[in-house]
Amino acid sequence: MPQHRERPRRLYGVMTTSTLIARKRDGQELSEAQIATLVRDYTNGTIPDYQMAAFCMAVYFRGLTPRETLTLTRCMVESGEVMSWHHLPGPTVDKHSTGGVGDKTSLVVAPLVAAAGSFVPMISGRSLGFSGGTLDKLEAIPGFEVQLSPSHFRRVVEKCGCVLAGQTTELAPADRKLYALRDATATVECIPLICASILSKKLAEGTDGLVLDVKVGEGAFMRTVEEASQLAGVLTDVGNGMGTQTIALITDMNQPLGRAVGNALEVREAIETLKGEGPEDLLHLSEKIASRMLALGGHPEELGAARAKVSSALESGQALDRLRRVVEAQGGDARVVDHPDLLPTARFQQDIPADRDGFVAGINPRTIGQVVMSLGAGRDRMSDTIDHSVGVVLRKKVGDPVHRSESLCTVHYNESSRFEAIREIIVGAFAVQAQRSDPPMLIKAVVD
Amino acid sequence: MPQHRERPRRLYGVMTTSTLIARKRDGQELSEAQIATLVRDYTNGTIPDYQMAAFCMAVYFRGLTPRETLTLTRCMVESGEVMSWHHLPGPTVDKHSTGGVGDKTSLVVAPLVAAAGSFVPMISGRSLGFSGGTLDKLEAIPGFEVQLSPSHFRRVVEKCGCVLAGQTTELAPADRKLYALRDATATVECIPLICASILSKKLAEGTDGLVLDVKVGEGAFMRTVEEASQLAGVLTDVGNGMGTQTIALITDMNQPLGRAVGNALEVREAIETLKGEGPEDLLHLSEKIASRMLALGGHPEELGAARAKVSSALESGQALDRLRRVVEAQGGDARVVDHPDLLPTARFQQDIPADRDGFVAGINPRTIGQVVMSLGAGRDRMSDTIDHSVGVVLRKKVGDPVHRSESLCTVHYNESSRFEAIREIIVGAFAVQAQRSDPPMLIKAVVD
Repeated sequence: MPQHRERPRRLYGVMTTSTLIARKRDGQELSEAQIATLVRDYTNGTIPDYQMAAFCMAVYFRGLTPRETLTLTRCMVESGEVMSWHHLPGPTVDKHSTGGVGDKTSLVVAPLVAAAGSFVPMISGRSLGFSGGTLDKLEAIPGFEVQLSPSHFRRVVEKCGCVLAGQTTELAPADRKLYALRDATATVECIPLICASILSKKLAEGTDGLVLDVKVGEGAFMRTVEEASQLAGVLTDVGNGMGTQTIALITDMNQPLGRAVGNALEVREAIETLKGEGPEDLLHLSEKIASRMLALGGHPEELGAARAKVSSALESGQALDRLRRVVEAQGGDARVVDHPDLLPTARFQQDIPADRDGFVAGINPRTIGQVVMSLGAGRDRMSDTIDHSVGVVLRKKVGDPVHRSESLCTVHYNESSRFEAIREIIVGAFAVQAQRSDPPMLIKAVVD
Repeated sequence: MPQHRERPRRLYGVMTTSTLIARKRDGQELSEAQIATLVRDYTNGTIPDYQMAAFCMAVYFRGLTPRETLTLTRCMVESGEVMSWHHLPGPTVDKHSTGGVGDKTSLVVAPLVAAAGSFVPMISGRSLGFSGGTLDKLEAIPGFEVQLSPSHFRRVVEKCGCVLAGQTTELAPADRKLYALRDATATVECIPLICASILSKKLAEGTDGLVLDVKVGEGAFMRTVEEASQLAGVLTDVGNGMGTQTIALITDMNQPLGRAVGNALEVREAIETLKGEGPEDLLHLSEKIASRMLALGGHPEELGAARAKVSSALESGQALDRLRRVVEAQGGDARVVDHPDLLPTARFQQDIPADRDGFVAGINPRTIGQVVMSLGAGRDRMSDTIDHSVGVVLRKKVGDPVHRSESLCTVHYNESSRFEAIREIIVGAFAVQAQRSDPPMLIKAVVD
């Protein structure tokens, strides 16, 4: 219970926090000084969680103006340290995905871009709801350390050209605190707050360029292309407004990306992709993102040349070698790159057969994500431990023909009771129809 | 900072608090069980302030259905004890005002109704923003105790027919906690939450009847008759739905009620009114409310007979005698009833002269309330102390003729600097025009 009651003190012109909340509630624009006060005092604990929670819900309903969104993002970046990479011999670039199911692109792209000559100081997150998290996937590699000290973080970038790590306490502390609050108060799905959260972490990395992969569809936070375009527009406006070259790709999340969903299974698929043996959609998206990153950093500036560099980094095995070096530099067992069997494996594998002949018309990624979560791959609470070995590997993707009794997917699990609980649900995730549907278009738009 | 991140767990059908918040945010109706869980777990501390703050802001934007409002009110009543008065030889009734400037009606009405033979176990509140609070006024009486133990509270009702006290920790604890939170999070001005807050305290008193004085105008939370009627409708629906006979009067707050604004000054005016020497509007409203209270309790049932009883209780001096007894029973110096000069008085009194000839067309009650607050009569924070002696006494009311240099009001103050700060503001509160305006209609509607 709040220890005091706070009053608006308009008579003397002093703005209390509740007056600021009321302004936003009533649809008024806050000044830069007001937003700066909110962010600073929330970060240092002067403004309590309950006032910020009410503010976030008011923002959910009223939105933020472009100026407010830019200011909020800037204040959140400035709540902590901003990294500097001027001493490096090449540009720094990064990518961010708004989250989906089976999206292990970061594991492919970071070593790929590093092998092509740009630097990638990548900060990633944990699994969230039904969508996976890069850090959780990386921790499937025995010994892999994602919480690095600032000096270790810098050293890995300098040595390997890229790093794959978690947010440090120094970077955008306002975001870390605010994100936990929003998650508990149903204020996550709000474009200006999403924008400030994503960009405050990424801009604090101090990179020259940033490619945003805005997922859209059943397995994404943004369900429609309109919503995704709106978010992409806000993100690129604010990113560019803050002086970081920013573009966004709007990409499909109406079926899982690639075939593997689940931490160790996705690491294995990322390694296969770097070996040229991965699924087509994952490879295609990884190449697109990597070449955009290179071009944004101006190394090379021309997109065609960037694509050629990416292909060469893949085909020469240099990208795979970068991954090997990063795993080693972050304390992981680098042998997994050549021997993926060293990754944790589940005790049981069971195929899920189709119940009719036809063509796969849809694979609900949200259902697949939730199923994999319920096998133990994700968390309900931050304190939960993750089972890295469990997951689902799709045998069919949208557009594929399937015969009755043929496997739709393979479920990797450790507890039979958990498997039994999801057996029917997973069959329901696949829509099998008589007529063939085209697979969804993977890259729907580029926003810059 | 929240200690954990909470996830919606829809797959297993378990509703987390953030899912409940999201339901309300998305405009869905919550079930009785869901509202009961929210109120119970917030009261016992399982649900933290920040989640309830987000919920309240979602309610601010989405509202509550009649069923939700009734359930919320019921759960808040049931968060604590409900008093029982079946052993008394007459009905119990109470009144509540939504708050205004100069509204000392409770101090007149409680002894008046008690003298007329019904019992009034009245729980009142403190000053809030620019509007005064009955408890703060009562504490102007030397020795008067507003925080009574439950047994003391009951004894005063049995002995004097009425009590004038503050909310105990036993009554509607959910409201006490929620009110403080709403005050700090700009979620006070929300009809279903106002309804649940007002009624949870009043219904926990266990009275047979309840008259609500819903103030409307510049000096009230409700600015328009439409808003006030909406609140009155919700209040009477929920009150009657909970089994307490409830009606609402919609009354004017476009100028202060009576002439005195400020704690001791208002006590003095209430005493004068009980002596038949008070201002006409205060007397009129007090008689209306008192006779409605008597009629609701059915003692007598007929409104005309109730009015006669009220007049007789006033004229016979019995009402004044009840006030004397209550003051004594609550530890106060009962001599103030006959010698109001024993109330605290301010060191300085200064008249504010009119700057032109004309008629008073308006007296902004919000400005008058803020001025009196800034003289020291109210609080910015709960820990502030109150100066009971300061205030303003109106010499002119709306419709009165005024000559240049004639006094508009007298300011009672202790600090010259504070007086100087408000001197111009208070002149601006009076609109003086060449043409005479009619005073606003005092009682605008009765809702039952």
